[in-house]
Amino acid sequence: MIKKIALTGDRPTGCLHLGHYIGTLKSRVELQNSYEQYVMVADIQALTDYYSNPKKIADSLLEVVADYISVGIDPNISTIFVQSQIKALPLLNVLFMNMVTTSRLERIPTVKNEILQKGFGDSIPVGFFGYPISQAADITAFKAQIIPVGDDQLPIIELCNEIVRRFNRIYNTNCLLEAEAYLSKTTRLVGIDGQAKASKSLGNAIFLSDTPEVVKEKVFSMYTDPDHIKVSDLGKVEGNVVFVYLDAFHENKEEVAELKVRYQKGGLGDVALKSLLNNTLQNLLEPIREKRASLKKDFLMDCISDGTKRANIVADKTLEEVVEAVGLNYFA
Amino acid sequence: MIKKIALTGDRPTGCLHLGHYIGTLKSRVELQNSYEQYVMVADIQALTDYYSNPKKIADSLLEVVADYISVGIDPNISTIFVQSQIKALPLLNVLFMNMVTTSRLERIPTVKNEILQKGFGDSIPVGFFGYPISQAADITAFKAQIIPVGDDQLPIIELCNEIVRRFNRIYNTNCLLEAEAYLSKTTRLVGIDGQAKASKSLGNAIFLSDTPEVVKEKVFSMYTDPDHIKVSDLGKVEGNVVFVYLDAFHENKEEVAELKVRYQKGGLGDVALKSLLNNTLQNLLEPIREKRASLKKDFLMDCISDGTKRANIVADKTLEEVVEAVGLNYFA
Repeated sequence: MIKKIALTGDRPTGCLHLGHYIGTLKSRVELQNSYEQYVMVADIQALTDYYSNPKKIADSLLEVVADYISVGIDPNISTIFVQSQIKALPLLNVLFMNMVTTSRLERIPTVKNEILQKGFGDSIPVGFFGYPISQAADITAFKAQIIPVGDDQLPIIELCNEIVRRFNRIYNTNCLLEAEAYLSKTTRLVGIDGQAKASKSLGNAIFLSDTPEVVKEKVFSMYTDPDHIKVSDLGKVEGNVVFVYLDAFHENKEEVAELKVRYQKGGLGDVALKSLLNNTLQNLLEPIREKRASLKKDFLMDCISDGTKRANIVADKTLEEVVEAVGLNYFA
Repeated sequence: MIKKIALTGDRPTGCLHLGHYIGTLKSRVELQNSYEQYVMVADIQALTDYYSNPKKIADSLLEVVADYISVGIDPNISTIFVQSQIKALPLLNVLFMNMVTTSRLERIPTVKNEILQKGFGDSIPVGFFGYPISQAADITAFKAQIIPVGDDQLPIIELCNEIVRRFNRIYNTNCLLEAEAYLSKTTRLVGIDGQAKASKSLGNAIFLSDTPEVVKEKVFSMYTDPDHIKVSDLGKVEGNVVFVYLDAFHENKEEVAELKVRYQKGGLGDVALKSLLNNTLQNLLEPIREKRASLKKDFLMDCISDGTKRANIVADKTLEEVVEAVGLNYFA
């Protein structure tokens, strides 16, 4: 039986963190056995807002690949590749730009939010404005049908499918495939400061590569319940970051439920609670950290060089079909 | 002495006409001896608004090349190539999209006018919206410094130079060169109906490949002075299409000046005037038509295949420098 193709990616603008782990990396480790999986280091997309800091991107490239392999994404099973090195993608992107109107792009809520969050104001780089089209190129180049994402990415997959249907209809082809989102249970992890999203740029995330000391320090600085001063005080669970992380990462769900009851009644202190979370996270991160330490730079380079070669073959094949469908194969 | 590089191009959406001839083709024939000249068939740009009619583009490709060679652009001196076949262009375009904001694009008067003229309303294809960036990729890929254009294209060259300066500054390089417009004396030719611009889409142009009969018919249907009924009537020169064309194409400028005086005083009929213009145009077009008839399809294909190969080598070299400047040459 032919396996369906799954595609995911990350912008290399720093190391990956627990938000990535719970939101998508964990799924990828599971998915790689049931699907043919492509994992993309999205450096071209990172440039759409980090264009003036390309060093950050180059420096993060191997860190992200190390994160992938440390958590269990196997470069012999999954194809890990670098976006900028895939020759077919820019032309696909350019051709898809004719399938979408500017007002359609303006209506994508994900992009609207990001524009606000990044404070672009009226100065939105065209590349950033158009990145959902670039993502459609990424997805379709590999004929991916399964996209493990958070729910904030659903409108972008919707746009991708619109492009697919429009392109196939206009050019009378079926060479592009529609994709569907594979939503993970926890799609977004709050930051340790209680901010809506743990993020590299907000500096409120626990990184997969953080040392045990840093993890502990971050756990003990987590936002809990500001009115819960003494151990005997009644505590609030809602908005309490420690409980959010316990829900996400502690295996024993019953224990977490009991702790919530005790915390709300009073008598459970933040220190005890944070100690438990710290143990949970250290247990999760220890093998990842060990694996990471064993990875040599040359090995990581070989992995992405090899993955990129395999990915280029697949994407070239799709581009060939696309170029033929549009009728640009004059010299064939 | 190293020759400076000139670049021009045309969208292959039909045959070329007298407006192209006087606006740019004539200059190119002159320029090809003093500059290293690249002439691009801009099929990717044509797709930005003809995306649903790719057959029109494919069908026009060789017609446009035939027009080039018929007027005297020598494929052994100038490099004639096809935009879609230049591998470096889409990635340059994508990288340049980060150098420009959406509001900067919205302010380009040329694009504003075209959006109105084409009746896009709120449905502007992203590809069309961004075509000035794509043109910057075309220009810089060949390190072109001389761009023979009409004055309506000046804002696009201005944008290109902004991109060049910004890119070179951000990535600390000098691999991109600024370009300057080479304006021809007649930058825009009115249509035979008196409309502002002779254009393929308005159907008011005299094509280089029109038969003598069609040329004559078009000349004799030209808009003159609607109040000039009898030969003895006083005539108006302003807005009179026949005089616009005589100004543009009749070699003897003194004769045209005398005719204007006679026409305005009364006593010179439209038929005599149109006969003179017809002779002028037939003399201009006859050798072009003959040359065109001698061109075989295989020869035209060889010309652009060969030109495209030469162009790819140059553009690949530039892309290599650009990729290195941005720092995307991880595997180098």
